[in-house]
Amino acid sequence: MKFSILTLFPDMFTGVFQQSILKQAQEKGIVEYNVINFRDYTKDKHNRVDDYPYGGGGGMVLTPQPLFDAVESAKRGEEGSTPRVILLCPQGERYSQRKAEELSKEEHIVLLCGHYEGYDERIREHLVTDEISIGDYVLTGGEIGAMVIADSVTRLLPGVLGNETSAITDSHSTGLLEYPHYTRPASYLGHDVPEVLLSGHHEKIARWRREQSLKRTYERRPELLEEIELSKEDRQFLQKLKESHDKEL
Amino acid sequence: MKFSILTLFPDMFTGVFQQSILKQAQEKGIVEYNVINFRDYTKDKHNRVDDYPYGGGGGMVLTPQPLFDAVESAKRGEEGSTPRVILLCPQGERYSQRKAEELSKEEHIVLLCGHYEGYDERIREHLVTDEISIGDYVLTGGEIGAMVIADSVTRLLPGVLGNETSAITDSHSTGLLEYPHYTRPASYLGHDVPEVLLSGHHEKIARWRREQSLKRTYERRPELLEEIELSKEDRQFLQKLKESHDKEL
Repeated sequence: MKFSILTLFPDMFTGVFQQSILKQAQEKGIVEYNVINFRDYTKDKHNRVDDYPYGGGGGMVLTPQPLFDAVESAKRGEEGSTPRVILLCPQGERYSQRKAEELSKEEHIVLLCGHYEGYDERIREHLVTDEISIGDYVLTGGEIGAMVIADSVTRLLPGVLGNETSAITDSHSTGLLEYPHYTRPASYLGHDVPEVLLSGHHEKIARWRREQSLKRTYERRPELLEEIELSKEDRQFLQKLKESHDKEL
Repeated sequence: MKFSILTLFPDMFTGVFQQSILKQAQEKGIVEYNVINFRDYTKDKHNRVDDYPYGGGGGMVLTPQPLFDAVESAKRGEEGSTPRVILLCPQGERYSQRKAEELSKEEHIVLLCGHYEGYDERIREHLVTDEISIGDYVLTGGEIGAMVIADSVTRLLPGVLGNETSAITDSHSTGLLEYPHYTRPASYLGHDVPEVLLSGHHEKIARWRREQSLKRTYERRPELLEEIELSKEDRQFLQKLKESHDKEL
């Protein structure tokens, strides 16, 4: 799989792609990250990539030409297929694990990162296939959003995660929030590990963990419970939880 | 303002903090980013920071000691105040612009980034003040989430953004999605800039932009419309929009 990342700040990506799992994925030949400075594609004699907005107002707007040409160049040699061209922007579709899974099936993803400038609307309308926002907050540019997409998609590619890393931190893949984890020491600064985890009783441990997941999801993200399949035991547990919460109020 | 970022991959942050607005904010003395490898604080003789989970199961769990001691050290010299200690994790509160604004009033924010490991629950219960998730997707670690927080909070600090950069990309601060921007050329690959923007008629331009913002918000994020104040004109426009959409169906 190939990522082409178009940015005015290519050095922002150095650290992220040269560490840990993303580094290993490249070394294994599973993924390739091409970070491209789209200023290299401008035909403006002063090397500019932005200009004043028509109609006035503050801020600068990225001109279409450098981005159109940089995407064209990134597509070279792939005449048969069409890459996804994703614009990172606050107006975009909210990014989700489902979208990450969808994108992990692509062969080539182009990520366009504007910085504080706006984008000429023709980029949106005629160059881009998807607009994505990673959340309802304002960032100084699209670069960190591009990292979110590169990271979340890469870890889904076959062969990237070993078994030891895939089992944990899967809150949004099971549909429930994770149960609490504990490791040694059994007591730290007077705070003890729950006894059931020290019991060696596998069935009780599994039940405790399921209930803790349900409880945490119920307390923090109840809407997630509506989207998953619950067993009869799960329902009874949630019912009890609800009753005891109601009593407290 | 000071950020202390606790991670096992400090080099991931190099690129992001040494570019653009975050770099300038440091040079102006407005913000300081201390990236700390919490492995430096482990008392384990093999330098480990994680261990097997009690109760079995896959994955490793970060032990409490290195993180407790690293936070203690980051707090040194601030006996009067208590820093916010934020854990980046998928179970956390969903990050938002409102939260960024809240955090921008703090003097010291500590960000804890686990990688693919889980966290011992005692870290959550007795060390952390906030748990934050940047979105409903799975990342290989908390580092990119810490970048999201550092970036979104830093740009809100007084003196960081000049006027030229603050006016634009404010989708989530006005409550509406942004209107479309256009810059030169007036025609690119046969795609023209809307005539109203070339008219020089300020009032018409302002109205067009407001309506485009309303339209985009209505089409993409209608729930945002319920949270903002609308003028009589806005309401009439939305009503017409709704009627023409209903007709299309």
